Amino acid sequence: MTAATKTIQGNFFEDFHLGETIRHAVPRTVTEGDTALYTSLYGSRFPLNASDAAAREMGYAAAPLDDVLTFHIVFGKTVPDISLNAIANLGYACGIFHQPVYPGDTLSTESEVIGLKQNSNGKTGTVYVRSTGRNQRGETVLSYVRWVMVRKRLPHSAAPERHIPNLPEAVAVADLAPPRDVSYARYDTGLTAQPYLFEDFEPGERIDHVDGMTIEESEHQMATRLFHNTARVHFNQFYEKDGRFGRRIVYGGHIISIARSLMFNGLGNAIAVLAINGGKHTNPSFAGDTIFAWSEIVSKHDLPGRTDAGALRVRTVATKDRPCGDFPDRGEDGKYDPSVVLDLDVTLLMPRRAG
Amino acid sequence: MTAATKTIQGNFFEDFHLGETIRHAVPRTVTEGDTALYTSLYGSRFPLNASDAAAREMGYAAAPLDDVLTFHIVFGKTVPDISLNAIANLGYACGIFHQPVYPGDTLSTESEVIGLKQNSNGKTGTVYVRSTGRNQRGETVLSYVRWVMVRKRLPHSAAPERHIPNLPEAVAVADLAPPRDVSYARYDTGLTAQPYLFEDFEPGERIDHVDGMTIEESEHQMATRLFHNTARVHFNQFYEKDGRFGRRIVYGGHIISIARSLMFNGLGNAIAVLAINGGKHTNPSFAGDTIFAWSEIVSKHDLPGRTDAGALRVRTVATKDRPCGDFPDRGEDGKYDPSVVLDLDVTLLMPRRAG
Amino acid sequence: MTAATKTIQGNFFEDFHLGETIRHAVPRTVTEGDTALYTSLYGSRFPLNASDAAAREMGYAAAPLDDVLTFHIVFGKTVPDISLNAIANLGYACGIFHQPVYPGDTLSTESEVIGLKQNSNGKTGTVYVRSTGRNQRGETVLSYVRWVMVRKRLPHSAAPERHIPNLPEAVAVADLAPPRDVSYARYDTGLTAQPYLFEDFEPGERIDHVDGMTIEESEHQMATRLFHNTARVHFNQFYEKDGRFGRRIVYGGHIISIARSLMFNGLGNAIAVLAINGGKHTNPSFAGDTIFAWSEIVSKHDLPGRTDAGALRVRTVATKDRPCGDFPDRGEDGKYDPSVVLDLDVTLLMPRRAG
Repeated sequence: MTAATKTIQGNFFEDFHLGETIRHAVPRTVTEGDTALYTSLYGSRFPLNASDAAAREMGYAAAPLDDVLTFHIVFGKTVPDISLNAIANLGYACGIFHQPVYPGDTLSTESEVIGLKQNSNGKTGTVYVRSTGRNQRGETVLSYVRWVMVRKRLPHSAAPERHIPNLPEAVAVADLAPPRDVSYARYDTGLTAQPYLFEDFEPGERIDHVDGMTIEESEHQMATRLFHNTARVHFNQFYEKDGRFGRRIVYGGHIISIARSLMFNGLGNAIAVLAINGGKHTNPSFAGDTIFAWSEIVSKHDLPGRTDAGALRVRTVATKDRPCGDFPDRGEDGKYDPSVVLDLDVTLLMPRRAG
Repeated sequence: MTAATKTIQGNFFEDFHLGETIRHAVPRTVTEGDTALYTSLYGSRFPLNASDAAAREMGYAAAPLDDVLTFHIVFGKTVPDISLNAIANLGYACGIFHQPVYPGDTLSTESEVIGLKQNSNGKTGTVYVRSTGRNQRGETVLSYVRWVMVRKRLPHSAAPERHIPNLPEAVAVADLAPPRDVSYARYDTGLTAQPYLFEDFEPGERIDHVDGMTIEESEHQMATRLFHNTARVHFNQFYEKDGRFGRRIVYGGHIISIARSLMFNGLGNAIAVLAINGGKHTNPSFAGDTIFAWSEIVSKHDLPGRTDAGALRVRTVATKDRPCGDFPDRGEDGKYDPSVVLDLDVTLLMPRRAG
Repeated sequence: MTAATKTIQGNFFEDFHLGETIRHAVPRTVTEGDTALYTSLYGSRFPLNASDAAAREMGYAAAPLDDVLTFHIVFGKTVPDISLNAIANLGYACGIFHQPVYPGDTLSTESEVIGLKQNSNGKTGTVYVRSTGRNQRGETVLSYVRWVMVRKRLPHSAAPERHIPNLPEAVAVADLAPPRDVSYARYDTGLTAQPYLFEDFEPGERIDHVDGMTIEESEHQMATRLFHNTARVHFNQFYEKDGRFGRRIVYGGHIISIARSLMFNGLGNAIAVLAINGGKHTNPSFAGDTIFAWSEIVSKHDLPGRTDAGALRVRTVATKDRPCGDFPDRGEDGKYDPSVVLDLDVTLLMPRRAG
């Protein structure tokens, strides 16, 4: 038995099989400690996650975890199996938050391989997985699809049958899972000191979130470790000094969390994430970058059977070292402004004005 | 509706009106996670806050939050409304800790504008607010006065009627609110391994706190975000690189917490803060600065109706990159030694020796 | 009374007396906040500490604290009394984890001086202490021996009688204290996605733990403060800039925790530490260093009366800026490879395969 055989080296493209299910290590109990760290790392101020009192007023058992924190914890577990040998995290789709996660819940993740496509160079391939996060009762709290480009172990190994899953552009409104047994009918805008509710936003409206946040090396490392994400590019300067960028790359989810936190200024009452419709990390980020963000209201939707809240589909673009007052974006040629690091498409829950 | 209208740009001097009350966003439940982070960021070792067992021995329900942490959380909420456009944080007065805050409490803050004074340049003015932090039962946990210099939106706008509140030099002993239903009569100095109690200190006595602590960029950012403090000078290197100092400025409260933590060495049994009589940030601090501190006993006071503890009024001076063995201070000309960053005047609770 | 008299300057060699017992400040309640920070700082993923659900399945009351976190908290309290004037932390022995520590427990530490040896230069001496950490019920949770080289206050002061304790090379199997009232008989290797259990390891086997982790200044400071460790070399760049290395030295325990965390890859089912047989910090570490580690199985032992788990004695070597694929080690001349920073000898609990 050689030394290497007992350690995890990650899967290569050939190791994935269409339809297989991968149970990921390690289940993790989330706590108020995680919430405190999340606040400390991102400064998130959405009142549903900040205040037990406010959450209970709406009918929640307590302040649930920030949805994006739940995403990171569910996602982190997939890294050792799915993306340790990934070259690129290509996209997300079909992300649905099925129910609130509370401190004390234990989360675990399982992934199903739903697509495979070898690239024409024969050296890499794209793997599509649907990952499902469950709590200690086995209830699904989050499911999402992600696809990554993964190295092949051997360039000459046979290509698997090509299968590209059919992914919707956005989660259908009928598939959203707004929390049951809670009500936003008496939602108090004084919680955020922002008066704007569902009725006040219109498709096409753009919001510059104004503030910026500079990333430090230890912050993204602490965040990424908190999520049990083991991708070496985030932690190992000894290797990265000789890598493509000469430095550690910030976990893409770190940028999502900063963007979500910046979003508070202008969308403060969009207190929960219902869906991640899509997302692209258009450029890498590094320690020292200052992240800004802007959002566009894509569309507005009634939530079936609910008069207390609606769904806002929002596209949020994050940049580095570039304020967003003029909404830096993709040009007509389809190319992103070089400052853009994230193009995220989410559906947010926002209370309606009391009738 | 333009993009900017939905985001918070902060109030300017003209936006404040004498007597108005501002309810601040966002209520925040404090937890054991906050206490762990506070320990991690400042190394505070006061046993009342570190040990549930010790706190219960004194009659507390559990280890309460460090008083200065409570201050930061109550304070942080005021920033978006009061000091987002502030040029300087000029002073504090009348800070009274009314009752202990425990993990699980939800804190919110309200401020009353109690003074306004336009400066002679017509471009700025001083705003005085009394901020009150309350728990989920509506009970006041902390109140204090702060005044800041705020930019005017328009140099030519009319000046408000000048009103400067009458602020006492220190909180009167009769106004202090030492915790009820607890007793320090059997206080155990073994908790701190420091034998010095109320009887051992005399007005005029000076204590060099010996230790120093170097500030890192991520530490002050994590702290300041934990407190929901959104002042951009602390987080945004993209803007600050072109600012007055070329770098991010450390939140003044970060220095207060470091000083309070250093104070343990010499004043370890001064286990609670009863009052913040005053405080000045005499110089900005930056990442890389090493903070030292010394204290002077200003006066000693019996606490009405209490034989188990007394009040020590203490002036604590913090410096950067300058040990405090020779007590660097304000000179006879009233000017501070250039190393001094903080001049803080607090009243501390200290157990008395058992009779 | 002079200013200096009330502050802690640490003990010098002359201040220690054979047989004396030192009660250390400050008792500290450990919480889920500490566990979250520990995860964030080290990325530890052992399922026993990460998941309440997994821990309860084995019969624990909840997820206990990581054993190494317990070690740091018990150890930290000894620093102001034992090692504030230490020149070197020479070694550890006889470390036994007596029972699990849970969030909510309050830990305190006491040390007995069990050995003294003045060095021939007359300026320093070695102090041996046995430190015992206890919970709020007075039960021992950890005991260990440490010896440090401490400065003398006065070079000409008389040498104490020389007494060197007789320390075993390793904790005897009969002295190990594996948790009672729990069972690993139904241990689920799916928790770690690693199939290797007690039966799969053989003495002499070496495992390269593959991954590396780069240390940041704020990370080791936050960790060390979390542990109430006050050694100034870790925090005070103002002094250290003129010190032997020109920079802050990373707390040796920080390296132990990184090594333990890296150990997950290959020894993921070694879910608890039973003993610290020995340990040497062979070189200092600094911010910017990337830590790697490898382990060797020293020996395997049945645990008396237990068929559900066995004990693996493991030697773990950590390096800086040097991958461990070729197991950098001590040479035949007894000198360590210059990359080696830690040589740790521990006994780990590992479940056995169900019969």
